[in-house]
Amino acid sequence: MAKTIENLEIEYQLAPTKKQKPNPNELGFGRIFTDHMFMMDYTEGIGWHDPRILPYQPITLDPSAKVLHYGQTVFEGLKAYLSQDDKILLFRPEKNMQRMNRSNDRMCIPPIDEKFALEALKSLLRVEKDWIPKAEGTSLYIRPFIISTEPFLGISPSISYHFMITLSPVGAYYKEGINPVKIAVEGEFVRAVKGGTGDAKTGGNYAASLKAQIAAKNRGYSEVLWLDGREKKYIEEVGSMNVFFKIGGEVVTPALNGSILDGITRNSIIELLKYWNVPVVERQISLEEVIQAYNDGKLEEAFGTGTAAVISPIGEFAWEGKKMIINDGKTGDLSKKLYDTLTGIQTGELPDPFGWRVVVD
Amino acid sequence: MAKTIENLEIEYQLAPTKKQKPNPNELGFGRIFTDHMFMMDYTEGIGWHDPRILPYQPITLDPSAKVLHYGQTVFEGLKAYLSQDDKILLFRPEKNMQRMNRSNDRMCIPPIDEKFALEALKSLLRVEKDWIPKAEGTSLYIRPFIISTEPFLGISPSISYHFMITLSPVGAYYKEGINPVKIAVEGEFVRAVKGGTGDAKTGGNYAASLKAQIAAKNRGYSEVLWLDGREKKYIEEVGSMNVFFKIGGEVVTPALNGSILDGITRNSIIELLKYWNVPVVERQISLEEVIQAYNDGKLEEAFGTGTAAVISPIGEFAWEGKKMIINDGKTGDLSKKLYDTLTGIQTGELPDPFGWRVVVD
Ligand SMILES: Cc1ncc(COP(=O)(O)O)c(C=O)c1O
Ligand SMILES: Cc1ncc(COP(=O)(O)O)c(C=O)c1O
Repeated sequence: MAKTIENLEIEYQLAPTKKQKPNPNELGFGRIFTDHMFMMDYTEGIGWHDPRILPYQPITLDPSAKVLHYGQTVFEGLKAYLSQDDKILLFRPEKNMQRMNRSNDRMCIPPIDEKFALEALKSLLRVEKDWIPKAEGTSLYIRPFIISTEPFLGISPSISYHFMITLSPVGAYYKEGINPVKIAVEGEFVRAVKGGTGDAKTGGNYAASLKAQIAAKNRGYSEVLWLDGREKKYIEEVGSMNVFFKIGGEVVTPALNGSILDGITRNSIIELLKYWNVPVVERQISLEEVIQAYNDGKLEEAFGTGTAAVISPIGEFAWEGKKMIINDGKTGDLSKKLYDTLTGIQTGELPDPFGWRVVVD
Repeated sequence: MAKTIENLEIEYQLAPTKKQKPNPNELGFGRIFTDHMFMMDYTEGIGWHDPRILPYQPITLDPSAKVLHYGQTVFEGLKAYLSQDDKILLFRPEKNMQRMNRSNDRMCIPPIDEKFALEALKSLLRVEKDWIPKAEGTSLYIRPFIISTEPFLGISPSISYHFMITLSPVGAYYKEGINPVKIAVEGEFVRAVKGGTGDAKTGGNYAASLKAQIAAKNRGYSEVLWLDGREKKYIEEVGSMNVFFKIGGEVVTPALNGSILDGITRNSIIELLKYWNVPVVERQISLEEVIQAYNDGKLEEAFGTGTAAVISPIGEFAWEGKKMIINDGKTGDLSKKLYDTLTGIQTGELPDPFGWRVVVD
């Protein structure tokens, strides 16, 4: 099904004027976009075609475009960093393209050519290199996504799509050093269930999560801890991050069971822990078990993992009017070491024994 | 939260030229749209504003508009009919606006003023009256929908939206008389789960259903029968319709449990059956129970219900390599009577003892 588009040439339509770069100290997340974006189209019977780099600009869609009605869409998220010696660095970007194709498969979207998509991203980054912020903790967030465009209200996969990549300079996630968050265990709403779309990076999962997220924020919590949709017993994810627990010296994270996302940070942490000979296991883990470990004084650390924060230490879990304070509400040693090592590898400040970095020449 | 917009005047920007009307015998579903659409915008701090009827045309969205990434969107579906005496008829349209607001609540979209939205629809229908097809079984399909437009990649509810209504003339669902379909029981994929978004009419539910639907079509079935996401044991819906079974003289349909849609056709059928003194019950019903009834010779009829088909008789269910043929694969008497009565009420050919019809003057 995937068309070979190796021979396709990317067309460059460069912006006649450039935007002013934002103040590097005032970068937030995902509100500022660079001068250009990448775009290509899919047409049934032709495949992906017309790859182009063009000025960042509004797109036009028919009011009946499928994405607006039936949510047939997938996305990815990764970051580019500028190294001390001025090179553009990516972190395991091939994994994002692979995951996008797994999401595509679940959502009945035609596959992309992963190699070509990565080349397209590199081409865009070369054009936008000036936009990669340099300050500690900052980076250029990359958003590849696919939307279904067929103007047809029947419930069926679209026969036409746009694949796009946009770029957004983002500020340091932790402005005053890495800082633990408070998490509310979600007892009512469900993000995903086995057989559903939880392991695909698709819009509906995120729309489904909004209501619980807002309720938690209103109660003073940063995010929710999602339990499984079947029994509301097993731990799945925290906000839109994977979650890890350090219990009695062993690190535990929920196994990939079909309803959680196969996070690239998660995978990297597992590999890093193995490399360090820290015991790590992927398995089903219940909330009850975590509470028991806490009561037994064995719950040493907990943290979320994802591209945005890399590591997000968890200082508190609240459930049914009860709460547990983890590691005195402070960032644990392992969380800190993982954060420092991963960000060090990502930004080029540390050696990369795994070959995870990709330099954009 | 809902703003009173009773005093808002709808602005008319009429199309300078009209499209040619399609051949009434070649109407399909959802591919042809009328000359105009309705649109209004939501801005945080202002509410809904700028209601307007304008030519049907592409809309522009920022590439980072939330609907394209996080699926924050809701929609509705209903139909307008032209009566013998040339009046525009709607069927319980206030129920669609109420349901849209329930979907809005689940998806963290600001509520619409239901009365105003219905007035907007009526205004649009007055402009597009010529587009309502007259032939038996045809109608004008109405698609109200809301999309989130804020250009921000953070996962949070949008602060801006478009509410739109488009219209599409649709052909007779049954060209050669009402005809039973074959349904595959879905054993792997799940459409929705309690705590999720199954009772909201939102894009992600439909995107999630595509893969199972295609697999069923490839095996020669029209649609899938969805089982509950927790135990894969209880019957939920069929395709994007509610489902009814007639077992030993009693009509049974799954209760509204949070993961199925509160169908307006479903509700009307329940009321109609009660009016006719046919026993009808809303309760949890397992696949096993239906199979048992079939084996006992008590499964008399099965049918799906929804705006598109009104009643869709089911002639066959297939599961795990087995199958049951219902009523010899023919349309049952009750299915037929419900279809004739409901469509008769909708088109104005039968009396309307329930006051369900709304005439657009
Ligand atoms: C639902 C969800 N879980 C987990 C993750 C973490 O994945 P990754 O480490 O690849 O960023 C993400 C994305 O960031 C996500 O959206
Ligand atoms: C998932 C789903 N179930 C059931 C229905 C039937 O609802 P209604 O009778 O209001 O059209 C629909 C919509 O048509 C639907 O999308």
